[in-house]
Amino acid sequence: MFEARLLQASLLKKILESIKDLVESANFDCSPEGISLQAMDGTHVTLINLVLRNEGFDTYNCDRSLSLGLSLVSLSKILKCAGNDDTLTIKARDNESDTVTFVFESPKNDRVSDFEIKLIDIKNEQYSIRKSDYSAVIKMPSAELQRICRDLSIIGEIVTISANKEGVKFSVSGDSGSGNITIKPTSDSDVPAEQATVIESKEPVVLNFALKFLSNFTKATPLSPMVTLSMSEGIPVVVEYKIEDLGFLGFFLAPKIE
Amino acid sequence: MFEARLLQASLLKKILESIKDLVESANFDCSPEGISLQAMDGTHVTLINLVLRNEGFDTYNCDRSLSLGLSLVSLSKILKCAGNDDTLTIKARDNESDTVTFVFESPKNDRVSDFEIKLIDIKNEQYSIRKSDYSAVIKMPSAELQRICRDLSIIGEIVTISANKEGVKFSVSGDSGSGNITIKPTSDSDVPAEQATVIESKEPVVLNFALKFLSNFTKATPLSPMVTLSMSEGIPVVVEYKIEDLGFLGFFLAPKIE
Amino acid sequence: MFEARLLQASLLKKILESIKDLVESANFDCSPEGISLQAMDGTHVTLINLVLRNEGFDTYNCDRSLSLGLSLVSLSKILKCAGNDDTLTIKARDNESDTVTFVFESPKNDRVSDFEIKLIDIKNEQYSIRKSDYSAVIKMPSAELQRICRDLSIIGEIVTISANKEGVKFSVSGDSGSGNITIKPTSDSDVPAEQATVIESKEPVVLNFALKFLSNFTKATPLSPMVTLSMSEGIPVVVEYKIEDLGFLGFFLAPKIE
Repeated sequence: MFEARLLQASLLKKILESIKDLVESANFDCSPEGISLQAMDGTHVTLINLVLRNEGFDTYNCDRSLSLGLSLVSLSKILKCAGNDDTLTIKARDNESDTVTFVFESPKNDRVSDFEIKLIDIKNEQYSIRKSDYSAVIKMPSAELQRICRDLSIIGEIVTISANKEGVKFSVSGDSGSGNITIKPTSDSDVPAEQATVIESKEPVVLNFALKFLSNFTKATPLSPMVTLSMSEGIPVVVEYKIEDLGFLGFFLAPKIE
Repeated sequence: MFEARLLQASLLKKILESIKDLVESANFDCSPEGISLQAMDGTHVTLINLVLRNEGFDTYNCDRSLSLGLSLVSLSKILKCAGNDDTLTIKARDNESDTVTFVFESPKNDRVSDFEIKLIDIKNEQYSIRKSDYSAVIKMPSAELQRICRDLSIIGEIVTISANKEGVKFSVSGDSGSGNITIKPTSDSDVPAEQATVIESKEPVVLNFALKFLSNFTKATPLSPMVTLSMSEGIPVVVEYKIEDLGFLGFFLAPKIE
Repeated sequence: MFEARLLQASLLKKILESIKDLVESANFDCSPEGISLQAMDGTHVTLINLVLRNEGFDTYNCDRSLSLGLSLVSLSKILKCAGNDDTLTIKARDNESDTVTFVFESPKNDRVSDFEIKLIDIKNEQYSIRKSDYSAVIKMPSAELQRICRDLSIIGEIVTISANKEGVKFSVSGDSGSGNITIKPTSDSDVPAEQATVIESKEPVVLNFALKFLSNFTKATPLSPMVTLSMSEGIPVVVEYKIEDLGFLGFFLAPKIE
């Protein structure tokens, strides 16, 4: 028996909105430690890495590990039925049943919704996610990254991200013209530390990425006010959104080689 | 001569928004008692019953009954030109003219708009609306019914409504999965009586309906904070929105037989 | 060397939104006095007349006149990258370069964006704009004109504007019916002079216009709370939006002859 209760159903709703356009279906791996999901997009350019730790749940019961294979399209439809302040309980019986149940309860308990989704069989691939010692780690407001991706997408398809101690430059070029947006580390001491743009740079790094994917990652913006970009030459950038008290949602994107 | 003045043109605007996608044209039957409209949708599954009583109008003059046949599409376009705070005066001459005039006046009287629409000939069918002694009468927030219809429409096409003393369950099933949303009577005494969900149940009732039509009815949500569903086995459900001081807009929908 | 700095990049953004659907490309004529643009739409029914005076800029340096031919579609894309509170600096080198640079700076200076657009060769036509002594000059809230154009467009394609001392009447006729919206001069003394509708009428005037173009002009509504319509029989109406401290954007539209 697996049962996990989350005070904010809206968190899972936001997670699904961020990943459902990248991956059609995926395994939610439930273990005593928590729930995790790893999946690659159809073109194998992006890897999604979701970690939700047990201590972030209101209640969490998992005797033995089990894998819940779900259509993300179906799950996302079901989650649209959750009110913004509803709680969510996920229930599954190990190996006994071919469905998983999602229960939404309104704060005043005057509306209870329960939905059953059929489980599907998905080959569980293991992705080795190695911790790197990145050349540059940039923490910046997530809304700012979202805006940059949206704005530059109007002009071109490939963004060049150049980072050094002084700032991060996002460059793009297209038929209408070419442009650069440069973000500098926050120097204003009035800005609280948790909202400050911080650049940790060991050595300058310049990488090219498909804006289409970066823009897609920024759908996770509602999950966190800040986002972290970790970059080194020749390896995928990691775009990571912390999910308060619960875990994080990370995206890996391979750079484009010119 | 027929002339009726309504302080809020927006009321007729909201009524038209609720019915114009169900019925293309209809007769507004004007009598000394008020204005009424009865019409069935093209597929003869839904009956609209609109009643606007004379005492709800600011002024109301109707010497003898007349029927104003109007294209609801045209009327809805004209009403889009009414400001939210405009007053509305409807003017028609009996049998003399083939047009009806709608006059909108802004509160400060600095903008006056008058529109003429051609009358059309529509066969006046009489629908007998019998008062039933329903097995279940549910009064609930209209926004809640709208949300349930919108959410469940994502999952399936047919909703099963089951009502008893304990609550009303809306169930749906589709390719993504199946689900139930259950609404309970308000027990919280802090909720004012006019906002409370109340279920009057003589005997349990279970009926199936096409969500498409129910969803369409909920376009009337801006007319009233509450909606009433009256149900008995084998006869149409009545979904009714009170229009404060003026009358009501009711929809009849035949249940689907499995 | 030409360099002009505007405290509100959003002003140029709003100007481009107002004209980019009328004209594909145009010359920005830069002189020591300021920047001006004159262009006709493809069908030669509308003339755009934009004047931005040097004193409205934060800094303005222009040794000798030069013409910057730009694709308005490309410029509009670039301006979408300007934040609402960004400043804008336009830089061009006379005859040396085939590009112009737009620099956006955020108020806190933590984001700097620079964009280059290729200049294009556009034949510089001179349009003689004669000052007329108009039969009627109407100053009215720009949002009101926008609303009237939007509302009447639902009903028909041609608007008849009739103006005299008592008011301005906008009339339209179509398949759904016909209608008139009449605006009266403000009599309420509580309305500040700068928000009051004022009609200066020497003689009554009645003119027909294509609503499609008038509606397009009202995209300039965000530039100014008030708009002026200047009309005389047989010559184009002038629809003019003041741009505070900076200049104005005017549209000329030839009347339709019945």
